[in-house]
Amino acid sequence: MSQPMIGIIMGSQSDMRIMSAAAEVLDDLGVAYELTIVSAHRTPHRMVNYAEAARSKGLKAIIAGAGGAAHLPGMVASLTTLPVIGVPVKSSNSIDGWDSILSILQMPGGVPVATVALDGAKNAGILAAQIVGAFDEGVAQNLTDYKVAMREKVEASIRAIEDQ
Amino acid sequence: MSQPMIGIIMGSQSDMRIMSAAAEVLDDLGVAYELTIVSAHRTPHRMVNYAEAARSKGLKAIIAGAGGAAHLPGMVASLTTLPVIGVPVKSSNSIDGWDSILSILQMPGGVPVATVALDGAKNAGILAAQIVGAFDEGVAQNLTDYKVAMREKVEASIRAIEDQ
Amino acid sequence: MSQPMIGIIMGSQSDMRIMSAAAEVLDDLGVAYELTIVSAHRTPHRMVNYAEAARSKGLKAIIAGAGGAAHLPGMVASLTTLPVIGVPVKSSNSIDGWDSILSILQMPGGVPVATVALDGAKNAGILAAQIVGAFDEGVAQNLTDYKVAMREKVEASIRAIEDQ
Amino acid sequence: MSQPMIGIIMGSQSDMRIMSAAAEVLDDLGVAYELTIVSAHRTPHRMVNYAEAARSKGLKAIIAGAGGAAHLPGMVASLTTLPVIGVPVKSSNSIDGWDSILSILQMPGGVPVATVALDGAKNAGILAAQIVGAFDEGVAQNLTDYKVAMREKVEASIRAIEDQ
Amino acid sequence: MSQPMIGIIMGSQSDMRIMSAAAEVLDDLGVAYELTIVSAHRTPHRMVNYAEAARSKGLKAIIAGAGGAAHLPGMVASLTTLPVIGVPVKSSNSIDGWDSILSILQMPGGVPVATVALDGAKNAGILAAQIVGAFDEGVAQNLTDYKVAMREKVEASIRAIEDQ
Amino acid sequence: MSQPMIGIIMGSQSDMRIMSAAAEVLDDLGVAYELTIVSAHRTPHRMVNYAEAARSKGLKAIIAGAGGAAHLPGMVASLTTLPVIGVPVKSSNSIDGWDSILSILQMPGGVPVATVALDGAKNAGILAAQIVGAFDEGVAQNLTDYKVAMREKVEASIRAIEDQ
Amino acid sequence: MSQPMIGIIMGSQSDMRIMSAAAEVLDDLGVAYELTIVSAHRTPHRMVNYAEAARSKGLKAIIAGAGGAAHLPGMVASLTTLPVIGVPVKSSNSIDGWDSILSILQMPGGVPVATVALDGAKNAGILAAQIVGAFDEGVAQNLTDYKVAMREKVEASIRAIEDQ
Amino acid sequence: MSQPMIGIIMGSQSDMRIMSAAAEVLDDLGVAYELTIVSAHRTPHRMVNYAEAARSKGLKAIIAGAGGAAHLPGMVASLTTLPVIGVPVKSSNSIDGWDSILSILQMPGGVPVATVALDGAKNAGILAAQIVGAFDEGVAQNLTDYKVAMREKVEASIRAIEDQ
Repeated sequence: MSQPMIGIIMGSQSDMRIMSAAAEVLDDLGVAYELTIVSAHRTPHRMVNYAEAARSKGLKAIIAGAGGAAHLPGMVASLTTLPVIGVPVKSSNSIDGWDSILSILQMPGGVPVATVALDGAKNAGILAAQIVGAFDEGVAQNLTDYKVAMREKVEASIRAIEDQ
Repeated sequence: MSQPMIGIIMGSQSDMRIMSAAAEVLDDLGVAYELTIVSAHRTPHRMVNYAEAARSKGLKAIIAGAGGAAHLPGMVASLTTLPVIGVPVKSSNSIDGWDSILSILQMPGGVPVATVALDGAKNAGILAAQIVGAFDEGVAQNLTDYKVAMREKVEASIRAIEDQ
Repeated sequence: MSQPMIGIIMGSQSDMRIMSAAAEVLDDLGVAYELTIVSAHRTPHRMVNYAEAARSKGLKAIIAGAGGAAHLPGMVASLTTLPVIGVPVKSSNSIDGWDSILSILQMPGGVPVATVALDGAKNAGILAAQIVGAFDEGVAQNLTDYKVAMREKVEASIRAIEDQ
Repeated sequence: MSQPMIGIIMGSQSDMRIMSAAAEVLDDLGVAYELTIVSAHRTPHRMVNYAEAARSKGLKAIIAGAGGAAHLPGMVASLTTLPVIGVPVKSSNSIDGWDSILSILQMPGGVPVATVALDGAKNAGILAAQIVGAFDEGVAQNLTDYKVAMREKVEASIRAIEDQ
Repeated sequence: MSQPMIGIIMGSQSDMRIMSAAAEVLDDLGVAYELTIVSAHRTPHRMVNYAEAARSKGLKAIIAGAGGAAHLPGMVASLTTLPVIGVPVKSSNSIDGWDSILSILQMPGGVPVATVALDGAKNAGILAAQIVGAFDEGVAQNLTDYKVAMREKVEASIRAIEDQ
Repeated sequence: MSQPMIGIIMGSQSDMRIMSAAAEVLDDLGVAYELTIVSAHRTPHRMVNYAEAARSKGLKAIIAGAGGAAHLPGMVASLTTLPVIGVPVKSSNSIDGWDSILSILQMPGGVPVATVALDGAKNAGILAAQIVGAFDEGVAQNLTDYKVAMREKVEASIRAIEDQ
Repeated sequence: MSQPMIGIIMGSQSDMRIMSAAAEVLDDLGVAYELTIVSAHRTPHRMVNYAEAARSKGLKAIIAGAGGAAHLPGMVASLTTLPVIGVPVKSSNSIDGWDSILSILQMPGGVPVATVALDGAKNAGILAAQIVGAFDEGVAQNLTDYKVAMREKVEASIRAIEDQ
Repeated sequence: MSQPMIGIIMGSQSDMRIMSAAAEVLDDLGVAYELTIVSAHRTPHRMVNYAEAARSKGLKAIIAGAGGAAHLPGMVASLTTLPVIGVPVKSSNSIDGWDSILSILQMPGGVPVATVALDGAKNAGILAAQIVGAFDEGVAQNLTDYKVAMREKVEASIRAIEDQ
């Protein structure tokens, strides 16, 4: 596999249930990534090291998923100048996802996190590809093809309904 | 001014109160932008045209601010493969901002919007610069300097408290 | 079937689970309709075309169902002068339906959407019939009969309880 | 003035602050209306009489505004087959408007209320005109002109920003 | 059975699942009641008649359960001077019960509803008995015995834990 | 003054701003009351004594107002068999009143609190009078007169609007 | 077992499902505890006695779990100067846990409750151990070991993912 | 001043408006403290150093105040075994305080934060004193005196009302 451009991290192995969708869509869109576990609260030093090394090892963006009082995306954003995409995960200890959303979205001025929908790991992957695709024509074409495929799937369902 | 890399759009002139912060921070970070008004609900054709022309005229990302039932960021995202950054605006007709946040954040699979905090236009500007900075060393250096300046401002306030 | 007076649209085939109730009650009330899939985010041009052609092909109202960041009803309303009835759908990616409700209900001044209850497709159908019935005595009579039937069903349940 | 086609009612005189916007926009759109006070909780019999007489005196739709535990729109809807448009009012005793919205929007199956945004009386007026305009070409043309005027106002603000 | 002192009403037969607990606890506490179905939205005239006749037939309080946009308790309260106890029911069309609670609780000044917890029909029955018991020593004694029994049940569970 | 039938208590002197409305309406309705300060958290023993003595000194109901984590109404209810009416107060430390409402309303099975609207002290007073009036014809007549006066005030505002 | 340093109390036996986690982690961390049932609403006198005796019998902190209108933690805090840790329990009668959280968290000035996450009994136990460990080197070492074990568990999951 | 036992930290100088109340009550209760600014997002390395050094320099607990996506209390808790008390601050960029509360309260299993009420810095100070007072008789006596003073202040307000 080529040099990873996107880092996908999450707080625990149980988040893979949701976060694997980011990896899958990056595969589809032809963007190389790495994926590992980094816990803000259980491995804080690992988190600092991961975030501070991300740019120098060639990453262009980081996707971070977390649930409950979700500090991973915001803390990583405080430690790198790369764009950080936050995925609020509706984990078992979350209050319908509101805690995950608000603790990722409501970052103070100066330290943005690009937040996607609750459990929106697929969209996090697409957004990461869009960041790469803003500067890479090949990935941009893959994104255009992806949009066409979505439209064609809707068109197929239209015909299915009309044929009923 | 050099060729704009970022498009900043908003639903109405009254949103300038919030959205001007995106322009100001892009000025600080040395990233060229254009700024105009595009209303999803009052100028839908202009919105379609703006979104579909954005990539070919050289933009790398679009910042879209809107309040209430805020459809501008998501609709623009449906019409371009560029990354779209959504700013939920707590406008006068908003219910404490919840409507703005949810109608921007909760996009369906396939069409992401990079959502920032309520009224978080400054962070939208920084995030746009981070996207450019992932591929531009000069902007990356500006982002590093910005982080240092934030840290030094905190350190000054620490001394101010200690001197009391 | 006679010329459709009501257009029922929804973002994806999975919304049929909820939206078919609108079609059923329009059948009961003797109001002709058409039904198809129109996605704001995956088929935006189809959405523009559908909304702009609706009046000229004889529709009197449009029922649009969508979930999550639900932009379909509001965008259609921006493109037609027909009354648009929005059905917030509690889809799998919705946060208990709050996102669906707020992104349909909280439209800015100038572009109303007639919003019904969460998953309230049956009421959307009745409301569409009421719009027609305001000008059509036959449909008005069907609505009166429908109200009588509801009352009689309650009265039957009263007797059932009293007989216990 | 010609025969009223729309009835505008509200729970108390203090609601005029919000509800007068419905009357103003109906004036603009050339739709005759009547306006009075009907309180679900303080004049329940008047409410029953008003709702039951509405159709026979020629009304085509009723706009009802109320705040807090807002029962007026839904109760009127239970007593007529005309379309009822509900305006949730953020009155002084309301909890940020949530009570007004939910007690108008969440009507049970069989009795719809066409709910507009919080304090959205202007949109209630436009929606009422759209209902009339679905069957009246003159009002439909007024609605088209209204949409054009909104677009032109946006275009003027675009030029204002570009001239800065 | 003796002359009913409490009227228990609910919007539909499906509410019996929750509301039967009010009847059971009134049986336990020795307070006679009647129970029937009254729908604010499907039998509005029956509701008016029921509420206006309640005092003269000897009732001392009315327990009304309803879900969603729950108008029954408040409308009954507008039509009688008896105390009305409202039970917010988490019905299938309710948004986690918030709509039921707010449309019962947030009554305007002048027309109170004594609201109990979501699905709190048992407490509605006890509250009705407390109202009777404020003036009836026999019922008051039954309420004291009920409190003692609750305390003794806790004490039994304490011993069960200590014996483990 | 005659023997008090209603006890009005509140957690602190600052609650008088809201709670005085309960006293005023009881004056209007001819129901004698006593009023004092009882704090669940700062005078817990006084609270126990007040609640346990209430019935024997002739009270028929207790109105308790509190804000934030509002434990006064529920704790008093645990210590008496009288009906307890809870007034959620939107105090300065409250989160828009939600904490006050939920910590009063959501009592467990066995210990009801008759909850009224946020800051609804006037309605608490009316509800207390309704409890007395269920057994006292004089108070019942005062409540009927109060309802008539409310209706007449609405009718006056109708004429004021019609005369414009 | 040695003299208990922590008292774990809860409102009913059904809370053991959640609260047993506090006991288990205190066992792991080598801190002695006692555990029993104390109901604020069904055994208020027992609650007063328990809270007032806690310090003199050697307890250093009290963990109190409760759901719905959860008054136990705050009332115990009003009756002792020991730190009280509140566990909001998402009981069957709770509205998604919001009532439990707010009625424990939002205590008035002067009477704190140390609130942990919804159903966070394990964290309540750890927090109690941290209070003891602030003054006891042995418990402090156990807490350090616990942190190391958490980190090592994450590291094992990292290797598991890398080996895939 | 004697050796500090409590560390009070906050994200920015603007939080002093709220957080100074923690310092004041610790002064009243005779517990020595230090106070400084530590920003999770602008000085992450300072945060790591502060948290890891806290125990060895003699602190017994840390009070951390933060608003919006408030990561400071939870991140400090991940880096020390001392009890950490979190104060959710309703800062200007907060959504009515919900983001501050949830991102502090909802910590994952293993890393507790003792959360107090929104803007509850005074209670954070009292809780810190209670932790010290669990092992220090002098501080415990100060806490008892503080409780007596609160009760006496209520009693004075009772007399003030009775004298009216």
